[in-house]
Order: sequence, then C-alpha cells, then structure tokens
Amino acid sequence: MNADFINPFLTAVQNVLSMMAQIELKPGKPQIKKDDVARGDVSGLIGMVGPQTKGSFSISFDENLAIEIMHKMLGERPSGINEEVTDMVGEITNMVTGGAKRTLGEKGYEFEMASPVVVTGTDHTIRHKSEGAKLIMPFEHEAGRAHIEICFDKIS
Amino acid sequence: MNADFINPFLTAVQNVLSMMAQIELKPGKPQIKKDDVARGDVSGLIGMVGPQTKGSFSISFDENLAIEIMHKMLGERPSGINEEVTDMVGEITNMVTGGAKRTLGEKGYEFEMASPVVVTGTDHTIRHKSEGAKLIMPFEHEAGRAHIEICFDKIS
Repeated sequence: MNADFINPFLTAVQNVLSMMAQIELKPGKPQIKKDDVARGDVSGLIGMVGPQTKGSFSISFDENLAIEIMHKMLGERPSGINEEVTDMVGEITNMVTGGAKRTLGEKGYEFEMASPVVVTGTDHTIRHKSEGAKLIMPFEHEAGRAHIEICFDKIS
Repeated sequence: MNADFINPFLTAVQNVLSMMAQIELKPGKPQIKKDDVARGDVSGLIGMVGPQTKGSFSISFDENLAIEIMHKMLGERPSGINEEVTDMVGEITNMVTGGAKRTLGEKGYEFEMASPVVVTGTDHTIRHKSEGAKLIMPFEHEAGRAHIEICFDKIS
C-alpha cells in the first residue's frame, strides 16, 4: 500500500473534522506493524470494493473527543455516547471515505463504498482481517485521541 | 428487505457453524425494530456492494460461545479472546457472507464483499447506519448467544 492510497484518507479526516467541527487533529506517526491494534470507545467502519481491490476503513475516537466533536458541531454536550453520537460517527465515516474516494478516483483508483457500521463499547479494539498491508494512524487532540486504520487487498 | 435476502444468511450461519464446529445454533425471533442493537464480546463485520445495492453484515458472539466454537474447531480452549479467536471470527464472517452471496447470486442479486473487520470488547454494540431496513436475528446455544445483523440499502 503506497502513499497514493493513504494520503487521501489522512487529508480527508483532517478536512472533515476541521470543516464540520473546527477540530484540528494533529497527526501522529503511522504504524504498519501487524501487532498494532486500533482502539477507542466509538468507531465507524466501512467496507470498500473496487474492480481490482477490496478493503476496509475505520476511525476510532476516545469518548471525550467524540463528545467534543458533537459539542462543536451541534452545540450539545451529551453525557455519554448516545445514538446522536453514533449517527455523527457514521456520517464522519461516510464523509471521510467519500472524500478519499473522490481523490482516489481522480488518480484512477475506483471503488464503491458499503454502508457504515458504528461500534460502541469502552476501549474496544478493531482488527482488519485482510491479507494486504494495514496502516494505523493516530491523531492527537487535547480532548482525546483518534485512530484511523486503512486496509486494502487484491480481490480474489 | 424481503425473505429472499435474509434467509440465505440465516441458513449460511447455521451451515457454517454446523460444518466447521458441529455447533447447532437455535434461531430465535428476528427483530426489525430500529431500537434493537446487536451486542456481543467479539464481532465480525463485512461490507457488501452490488450494482443496485449496498449493505453490511455482522455476526456477534458471547465470549463463551466463541471459545466453545474454537474448542470444537481446533481442540484448543483459549482463556479469553485472543488473536486466534479473532482470526476464526473473521473467517466465519467471510464464509457466511460467501455462502449467502452464492445463494443470492443464483437468485439474480449480485454483490461483492469487502474484507472483514473483527471487533473485540466486553459487551460492545453494533449499529448498522443504513437507510434501508435492518434485521437482527438472535441465535441460542448452551454456551452463549450469537446475533447476526443484516442491512441493505439502495446505492446512491
């Protein structure tokens, strides 16, 4: 997996959160080791299928960061992860993947997106079961951490 | 979402677990209400994309049932959900969706599968964020419960 594939996702995460919530995430060091695991309290996941490749994308947030994004976007500060927060995380997942899809389409990499799924549960972990390379990228914010994970594989 | 779409998944879950692990799951009552939420300790998720539709499938297991399946398949009984268990849940997710894909393909419903993602975390919840109908189906076994959730939507 090369930078052509990864950078559109990194850029889309930062753009979406900056535009929608005036939240500026500070990117950390990407990890491509197999034993790293994305972890968070609420995660959005989406599957991607193209003519030559398939894959999955996830974005995980600490509860406190998810609530801060909610507060900045809608002016509300829920006391915990409720259905409005999971709806918001589903929307962010769609918007980030849609942004990356447009950029990748311009470079000749076409794929379609499945519908997003949102997982909640304190400190849950996400493992992308693909034979292809996986990239985990942490982001820092004073309200908490986010992780994205991207995984692409050849279609069998 | 009609029975043509749902039954192939129900049948595939029972077939895969019966064949692979001699585990006979007893299907419960399907739920199509919006406020039902699939819940478990380890879940496999997969995205699906076809020419006219997109969707997602998940299968969630109680820890004890996942460990029992592992024991029946491989003769090992891990003390908790380790990477072998998550690999197995990813494989089950692939096999169930692949089985349903074949049956649905014969009926003229074509879709491609993304790569599976496995979530772990005590009592986590799964919400499929699709505009289409969602179906949650519980299964009972003496070792614990499983849930599947299927969701299909028109492609935009």
